[in-house]
Amino acid sequence: MASIDLSVAARDFELNRDRFVEQWKAAVRFPSVGTDPVHAGDCRDCAGWFAARLREAGFETELLSTGAPPVVYGVRPGRPGSPVILIYGHYDVQPADPLEAWQTPPFDPVFREGRLYGRGAQDNKGQLAYVCAALETLHRLTGRDLCTVKVLLEGQEESGSEGLTRALPGWAERVKADVLLVADTFMAESGAPAIVMGLRGLVQLTVTVEGPLRDLHSGCHGGLAPNPATALCRMLASLHREDGRPAVNDFEAGCRPPSARERELLVREPFDPLRYERQTGVPPVGGEAGLTPQERNGFRPTIEVNGIHSGYGGAGSKTVIPARAMAKLSARLVAGQDPVRALAALEAHLRAQAPAGLRVVVSEATVGGPALRLDADSPLVASAAAVLLEVCGREPVFHWEGASIPVLSLLARVAGGAPPLLVGFGREEDQVHAPNESFALDRFRLGYLFITKLLSGW
Amino acid sequence: MASIDLSVAARDFELNRDRFVEQWKAAVRFPSVGTDPVHAGDCRDCAGWFAARLREAGFETELLSTGAPPVVYGVRPGRPGSPVILIYGHYDVQPADPLEAWQTPPFDPVFREGRLYGRGAQDNKGQLAYVCAALETLHRLTGRDLCTVKVLLEGQEESGSEGLTRALPGWAERVKADVLLVADTFMAESGAPAIVMGLRGLVQLTVTVEGPLRDLHSGCHGGLAPNPATALCRMLASLHREDGRPAVNDFEAGCRPPSARERELLVREPFDPLRYERQTGVPPVGGEAGLTPQERNGFRPTIEVNGIHSGYGGAGSKTVIPARAMAKLSARLVAGQDPVRALAALEAHLRAQAPAGLRVVVSEATVGGPALRLDADSPLVASAAAVLLEVCGREPVFHWEGASIPVLSLLARVAGGAPPLLVGFGREEDQVHAPNESFALDRFRLGYLFITKLLSGW
Repeated sequence: MASIDLSVAARDFELNRDRFVEQWKAAVRFPSVGTDPVHAGDCRDCAGWFAARLREAGFETELLSTGAPPVVYGVRPGRPGSPVILIYGHYDVQPADPLEAWQTPPFDPVFREGRLYGRGAQDNKGQLAYVCAALETLHRLTGRDLCTVKVLLEGQEESGSEGLTRALPGWAERVKADVLLVADTFMAESGAPAIVMGLRGLVQLTVTVEGPLRDLHSGCHGGLAPNPATALCRMLASLHREDGRPAVNDFEAGCRPPSARERELLVREPFDPLRYERQTGVPPVGGEAGLTPQERNGFRPTIEVNGIHSGYGGAGSKTVIPARAMAKLSARLVAGQDPVRALAALEAHLRAQAPAGLRVVVSEATVGGPALRLDADSPLVASAAAVLLEVCGREPVFHWEGASIPVLSLLARVAGGAPPLLVGFGREEDQVHAPNESFALDRFRLGYLFITKLLSGW
Repeated sequence: MASIDLSVAARDFELNRDRFVEQWKAAVRFPSVGTDPVHAGDCRDCAGWFAARLREAGFETELLSTGAPPVVYGVRPGRPGSPVILIYGHYDVQPADPLEAWQTPPFDPVFREGRLYGRGAQDNKGQLAYVCAALETLHRLTGRDLCTVKVLLEGQEESGSEGLTRALPGWAERVKADVLLVADTFMAESGAPAIVMGLRGLVQLTVTVEGPLRDLHSGCHGGLAPNPATALCRMLASLHREDGRPAVNDFEAGCRPPSARERELLVREPFDPLRYERQTGVPPVGGEAGLTPQERNGFRPTIEVNGIHSGYGGAGSKTVIPARAMAKLSARLVAGQDPVRALAALEAHLRAQAPAGLRVVVSEATVGGPALRLDADSPLVASAAAVLLEVCGREPVFHWEGASIPVLSLLARVAGGAPPLLVGFGREEDQVHAPNESFALDRFRLGYLFITKLLSGW
């Protein structure tokens, strides 16, 4: 073990900072929108760039085809008998629209006032950029006196990890590991570092209500033709009860409520509703009545309308009965829910609401993955907590995140039961998934120091 | 009175047909989308074109500013003491989108297989084109031995006639008339000519649910942030009862059901549900359970979602809680309903549904006009029926249309109580308000003959 002193790592960061920032920018420049076939070439280019970056850190790399954006795989053998750390991340990003809401172009990253702005500047390229920087430093400073590190970066995380999910069962030897490390999560709102103890699962679908052959005159046909937009609104309104709880039969089957220990840890980090409203523009009144915000976000499944589109939306008015109406839905799942069963329940609910005279078509139904709930009292968590205390000067808190890293449960299993360790340095102000996404250099630095210290200590 | 023989009018049409078609095409070429400020210049140009056309038929014309697309006004004095006929129409058209659904460009009219294709080819420019052609013929063949004809063409009919509504009270002398003639309606599905005995009123509004400052990550915020798209769906779902009847308190106040005589006339023209489904792609199951299609469309108010837009709508998925959601609504009203009161009821209903933590903004609230219900047994209707029998060879039927000509009630009142006469030659197959709108030359000819015979007989 070649544990690197924090002061050494910090000095190394200062010496290389400008270069690290340039590499971070280079990563953001790829418009690697994994969900959009138009950007397939950009995704391949981005994958190639990360592979090159890993080779500079001593890795042997491969680009693995999964019938989708390729997976970047790298391995850097360490001391014989050392633990094997598998780092998982994703180089794909969310679509950048609405483009007009960006102050600077999403794929032309700009550094201002201590932050880098651009799509993916944080999620996940920004966090990967400090991981890569730390791996390069470890390569320079420790040589072979390090644990074995494997890296797996996919290009479909934002849209369900379909290719990786299909390919993983055949990659058991490649991904075999003792720890599964992920840098794609958030710090506490208080500024304390955070270790993620839970993630929600994800399923998605698109539902379309098909009606008339064309848009119809709402006067000539109002009272005759059924209206697909009205019908879809009624269908979506039926997804929740008045109190906000999902009203979809069988959807919640198996949901596991928090344990007494989890409830105890959950309230350690207080939730400030006023700060939430300042940050987001809305009070935290979503989800189910009668539960704490932390429980609603971390321990309860939610169903969200991500988009709905039908008929006229321009200036003035157009008095039509639209020919069709389409909505995109996603549901977050909690421990105990089977994603396949939850998705089937959602689809069955929508089909059961099919309005008279109209056709309900479900498409793009995607099982992301199940939820993850981890053991807060493991030795792995204790060692990460010690490094975080040293790097950040504060005890970490435990988070049960509402977000998802869909493929993580499967990856942990195929990796031989490697326990996941999720530590990231995001904050709400980074506006991930939204226009003007950014990531602050000071947290990039914390991430770099954490990875450098953690891996050099194993 | 200089009644023109049908054979003379028919021969005149054949001699001038090619020229009439060219003029019809010229009218369609103006992209006079009255609701869209981008097309203000096109609307002015189109108004000027119609004024010029009227001058060729012996009219003195004015373009009247209403703080909106101008109104074309023309008058052609006839025999002293002759009746005064006021012809009302509109030169504005519905927006042409979705553009990709047009087989030929909407404002580059193409004549094929006996039909002219283009936005406005029927509604209302096509019907106005045969009116103008007939007026020109009457000018050539009868000279001053004709009734007095006034023409009033507006540029905001498709979006609520706001400018004309504001200006009309000051134009009593200009519009004073004995009959108010409108050529903007449909024939019977059976092919028989039709006289319209009723039109519905119209009110419109846009409702926006404003939520987070930006689109939020649906995982990090699901269960915390209220979802504007879900909320808007719930609001719109609340507009109707399970049986399809409007569920808006006070909205139906004053609604007058059909009289016994109206019910008797209503069923003379049978409604064929299979033909309706062939034409539109949907069975006629919209509106309220337990009523005939004719009654649902002609004698009951309806509330339609004309468009709804929120969040992501592109390829693949984007897991966000949208920052806002917007819907455009229109309601058709029946005799007895006060449009101001009905609009206020609709707005109050939406505001009362305002979801926790989100803001409901109502905009573009527009009172089109009240419904119109006419006397089927008047001498005016009898004389029009006689001309229709001669021109079409069939007895006309009576229609209570579901559509609206919003300003008509006000216009009839300001014109000194002139009874409206609504005869038009549209058919469902013309696809008005939709892509690939068209109008058939054989019905253009019927319209021309009807106007020529009717006016020359007065």
